[in-house]
This record gives sequence, C-alpha cells and structure tokens, in this order.
Amino acid sequence: MRLSPEQIERYGRDGFLVLPELFSAEEVALLRAALVEVFAQDTPANIREKDSDEVRTAMGLHLRSEVFGRLVRHPRLLEPARQLAGDSLYVQQVKVNVKAAFDGEPWQWHYDFATHHKEDGVSRPLALNLHVFLDDVSEFNGPLYFIPGSHRQGPAPASLDVASTSYPLWVVNREKVRQLAAEGGLFAATGLAGTALIFGDSLVHASPSNISPWDRRIFSLIVNPVANALTRRQRPDYKHHRDLTPIVPLADDCLATLADATAISAT
Amino acid sequence: MRLSPEQIERYGRDGFLVLPELFSAEEVALLRAALVEVFAQDTPANIREKDSDEVRTAMGLHLRSEVFGRLVRHPRLLEPARQLAGDSLYVQQVKVNVKAAFDGEPWQWHYDFATHHKEDGVSRPLALNLHVFLDDVSEFNGPLYFIPGSHRQGPAPASLDVASTSYPLWVVNREKVRQLAAEGGLFAATGLAGTALIFGDSLVHASPSNISPWDRRIFSLIVNPVANALTRRQRPDYKHHRDLTPIVPLADDCLATLADATAISAT
Repeated sequence: MRLSPEQIERYGRDGFLVLPELFSAEEVALLRAALVEVFAQDTPANIREKDSDEVRTAMGLHLRSEVFGRLVRHPRLLEPARQLAGDSLYVQQVKVNVKAAFDGEPWQWHYDFATHHKEDGVSRPLALNLHVFLDDVSEFNGPLYFIPGSHRQGPAPASLDVASTSYPLWVVNREKVRQLAAEGGLFAATGLAGTALIFGDSLVHASPSNISPWDRRIFSLIVNPVANALTRRQRPDYKHHRDLTPIVPLADDCLATLADATAISAT
Repeated sequence: MRLSPEQIERYGRDGFLVLPELFSAEEVALLRAALVEVFAQDTPANIREKDSDEVRTAMGLHLRSEVFGRLVRHPRLLEPARQLAGDSLYVQQVKVNVKAAFDGEPWQWHYDFATHHKEDGVSRPLALNLHVFLDDVSEFNGPLYFIPGSHRQGPAPASLDVASTSYPLWVVNREKVRQLAAEGGLFAATGLAGTALIFGDSLVHASPSNISPWDRRIFSLIVNPVANALTRRQRPDYKHHRDLTPIVPLADDCLATLADATAISAT
C-alpha cells in the first residue's frame, strides 16, 4: 500500500485523503469483536458520555488488546503515514470514538494541533490522524466534516470550550469557521466500514450529533514524528503516549493471521 | 401547478414529495425580507432557543405580515395540497423554523399527528405540512430526515419528551425508529432556497442540530381539512388556528405583484 503521486498532491491541497474500504469486512469484524472486550473494562481510559453511561471514547487500545496492538503497526496505515510524515513515527494516541445511535454528541470545530500544542507542548503540526471506520458512515450518523484546504492557512485562532460537550476542547472561533467554509466548503467523510481517512494536525474539522438509529464507531491512530515529540506531560499517558520508539510495520496479513490463530485456539 | 399522477403515486408510497425550486429567487428574497420584521416583534408567537436569545420559531405569520398572508394562499402550495387532501382546507399553523448556524437544535423523531391528535383533538392524520426553503438546505445545516413509507404503518407509538430540547414534543419510541429505518432507510430533504416539500401527518421525521456556519430557515404551512378540524383548544391560537374558513388560492403572481407594489410605494 503506497500513496500515488496524485494522492500525495491531493493531500497537500485538501489536507486529507479518503481511502475507501482499505480494510476488508473480515478485518473489520475482528476489530469490532475486540471492542466488546475493551469497552467492558473498568478504566479511566474508557471515557463515557455526559448524559448516559455509554463509552464515548476508549483510549490506549494498543496496550489493552492484541488486535489493536497489531492495527497500530498495520502497513496499510503506516506506509502512507511514512510517505507523508517520514519514517520515524511514534504512537501518540490510539482510540475508538463511538458516536452512539440517537445519543452521540457533536464535536465542535477544531483542529488537533491546538490541543497537541497547548496541552502537550508539541512544537509543529506534523502529526497525522489515521481513521478506520468500524461501521458504515453516512451523512446520517455523524460523519466528520472537513473544511478542505483549511490547513493551508496555518493554525487558526482557537479557544478552550468547556461547556458544549463532555470534554474540554480547543475550538476554532466562529468567524474563522465562516471564512474557511466560504472558501473551501465542507466535505462529509463518508464510506463503508473498513474505509480509512488520513488528515493532518492543522485541518479544521467537526462532526455533528448522531440522531440516526445507527452507531458510528471509528478507530483513530495519531502518529507523530519522534523529532516533534511532546515536551509536556500534564495529560494522562493514554491521551499522549510517552513511548517514543519508532513504529515498525507488520505484514499486510497481520490481522488475518491473528484471526486464524484465534480460530485455532478456539477449536 | 398540478401534481402529476406519478407524483401523487409517489406521495402515497413515500409519504412526501420534494418540489425543487418551486419559488423563484426573487420570491425567496421577498420572504426573507419579511422575516426581519416579524423576528423583531416582541410576541409569545416568537419562540426563542433554550440556550440563546435567537428566534427558533416564529408562528402565526399570516396574521403578522402581508407577505406571509399571501404565501399561505399561494396556488403553488395550495393546488397540490387540494389534490392530496381535498378542496376544503383551513390554515392550521403558519411558521418559520430557524435552525441557526452553529447553535440550531435538533428535532427528535416524531410525526405531527401525535401532537395534533393528543393536544388539539384532531381525529384523523389528514393534515399536510407544506415547507418552503428560505435558505439553501444541504446535508450540513440540519435538513429534515424522512423515513420513507413510515406513514403506511399508521401512527407509531409516541411519548412526550420534555427534556431533550426547548419544547415538549411527542416523540416516536427508539425501537420503532430502528425498525422503520431498517425497512425504509432515511432520506435527507435537501435543495436550493425556494424548494418546497409536502409531507403527511403520519410521516416519521427528525432533523439534526446545525453545526455548520450556515443558517437554515424553513417556512412551514400546515393545512387540515375543515371536516377534520381541532376539537380541543388548549394550545394558543398561533399553534392551531381557530378560523376554519376554507383557504381560497390567489393568483400565481401574488408575491411578485406585492413586490411591485412595495417598490412603487418606496419611490
């Protein structure tokens, strides 16, 4: 799995890429099955919704599950990431965001670097966010909205919003969102389960609430160049890992072989 | 303006019709200009958002504005309505729903007849809801979501939700929404400003919050057969008007001639 020159150019222009059905239905089934187990764990790394007891976000997953431990080293995610951000990348954050049917909350307009910079002392917006859809994501169940090209203006003015949702978030000022959307429009990142997204640390994005009857679970891996590592350690490890060992990709069938091994041990 | 036999058949099957750009840009401009005036009025018929002072819904508009007084008698709305629900229709409710940029709240899953029956004592689900988009409505700024065919199962189980939003609403149970959406899917009613919708009193629908930087204002006229009139008067007049005089359509250019008259009086 290598990005084409055309894809790399598009990433530079838009600030994101959609890779439809990068993972197979069998691989997605394996990831979903692993979720049941990690959601059942009683840990602060399982963050729950403000108005219900549902897991909204489960973090640090590569340390809690062999399946997700392999996914963060999967070449279909890592090879494109290394093309865009260099070979020496560490695992900054690993999570699944659940946007539950009927109740899933919105994420305000933001870009990840505001948090990485202000909370963790990361100096430059070089991290990449790699998503894998664990459910079909449509216009109805809370897809990410990207503002194409918004990364090219550099980090936008942001302020800390502690009121809107369950978690504090560095959000982009409304006037700036209006201006960026007038220029770049909005893009809804939709696709079938197994679809992947890549987007950069300065890309302005948001996602609406999920009023549909369909869950929307997305796996997210943030990788960051080792040379651009965190300099502040005020957030918990599962929000920004301290282990700066460069990630070494596994083989392309690393999930399939795990499924085989599981099937064998179950017989 | 007459519906074709194919449109009437589709209405029977899906429970709604979309009529793209039924009103011209000039007519929409006239309606928008009239909104400024009615929003500025200090009246209980201007209902404001829970978390801000913005007008969420402005009601009883045909009694407060000559422009909207003409719109409720416009043949492009009334002729199709008479084809579907008979010639003797009264004005049940006239409003503009604003779903403001960034802040606009969702509407939970519901159908209008639950309210008309339980609050106003309307006996049968024969009313029609006629919408005109006053802004472009896209997937991003809070369009109505319809469940096609949901009206054919008859009125769904509903319960009164007083917690979710600024207003109490008879909402459809989640299990029922899941089942209806599994059968009929969801349809987002989008279109350019001037587009009209027609949907029936039993059609299950909802709309998400508006996190986009674009307002979403929609005019709504509910008409009901005189023979199916309200039997209970507990809600204010502007929520269900008592005047059962059958509506008589005006000429197709009734908005244009008003614009001309306004232009002349301004010179």
